[in-house]
Amino acid sequence: MIPTTPKPDPAADLALARVIAAPPERVWAAWTQPDLVKRWFTPKPWETAHCEIDLRPGGIFRTVLRGPDGPEVDNTGCWLEVVPNRRLVWTVALLPGFRPNGSLPHGLSFTAVITFEPEGAGTRYTVTAMHPGAEAAKRHADMGFHEGWGAALEQLVELVSKG
Amino acid sequence: MIPTTPKPDPAADLALARVIAAPPERVWAAWTQPDLVKRWFTPKPWETAHCEIDLRPGGIFRTVLRGPDGPEVDNTGCWLEVVPNRRLVWTVALLPGFRPNGSLPHGLSFTAVITFEPEGAGTRYTVTAMHPGAEAAKRHADMGFHEGWGAALEQLVELVSKG
Repeated sequence: MIPTTPKPDPAADLALARVIAAPPERVWAAWTQPDLVKRWFTPKPWETAHCEIDLRPGGIFRTVLRGPDGPEVDNTGCWLEVVPNRRLVWTVALLPGFRPNGSLPHGLSFTAVITFEPEGAGTRYTVTAMHPGAEAAKRHADMGFHEGWGAALEQLVELVSKG
Repeated sequence: MIPTTPKPDPAADLALARVIAAPPERVWAAWTQPDLVKRWFTPKPWETAHCEIDLRPGGIFRTVLRGPDGPEVDNTGCWLEVVPNRRLVWTVALLPGFRPNGSLPHGLSFTAVITFEPEGAGTRYTVTAMHPGAEAAKRHADMGFHEGWGAALEQLVELVSKG
């Protein structure tokens, strides 16, 4: 069954893209293995204190981010699409088992689409965060989407480029 | 890939079940073919003025309900799981393409799990509506979940029992 390709909406989406000098399989591993996710997902000096992954539609994707002074943010959502080494779709709008999430951190709902396309010996990597509308996208941008995901991306590149 | 079985939570779920004297394939058809959905989905004297279905994860499930005096309610969501003749999962928390829905009718978010299990020559049919929590489930119950889905079920039974 071919899943629907999410429709981009520039007003309601935030995106970043990069060609990474590592094959898709390696970038995919960094997204789907909790021990690897913990090494890049949260921009320093924050850290990923906990990561739980059940990689299938409806399965948990949970990260607990911890700040330098101890505050924690629990991001619990679930996967919607899992296409090995090519595409991940995950949302915070639904909890594991697809139950609607009634307590979103910062009241911010989004679905993230991550693609991993082979490009030469590397990977064309894209992240698109889809929001209900332009207002929510702006709020996410104001909260530091580009800085945060950008810094995490640098950490991801560093991790997958090693050895 | 085996999807996660949604975890029931009696406090946050509303459910109904019935053994229907028609095979799963027939009940499944009534749920997945727009012309058939329009014949049972909305309790009279309301009607389903419009139904649109793209039966795959992320695909649209839209019904527009019209009251006798003309008011319309647009329910647009998407499918999350499609297991032919056995199970459907659909949510109003996400729009087609998995974008979070920022304008839920009545502000009510839920995910519905519908199962169709063979039982003798018939079908054990269940509907479970999962809510973010007990308060939302109570509000859905107060809005007439049992009466509405119950009346629709009678219409469904009448439709699939014919010929």
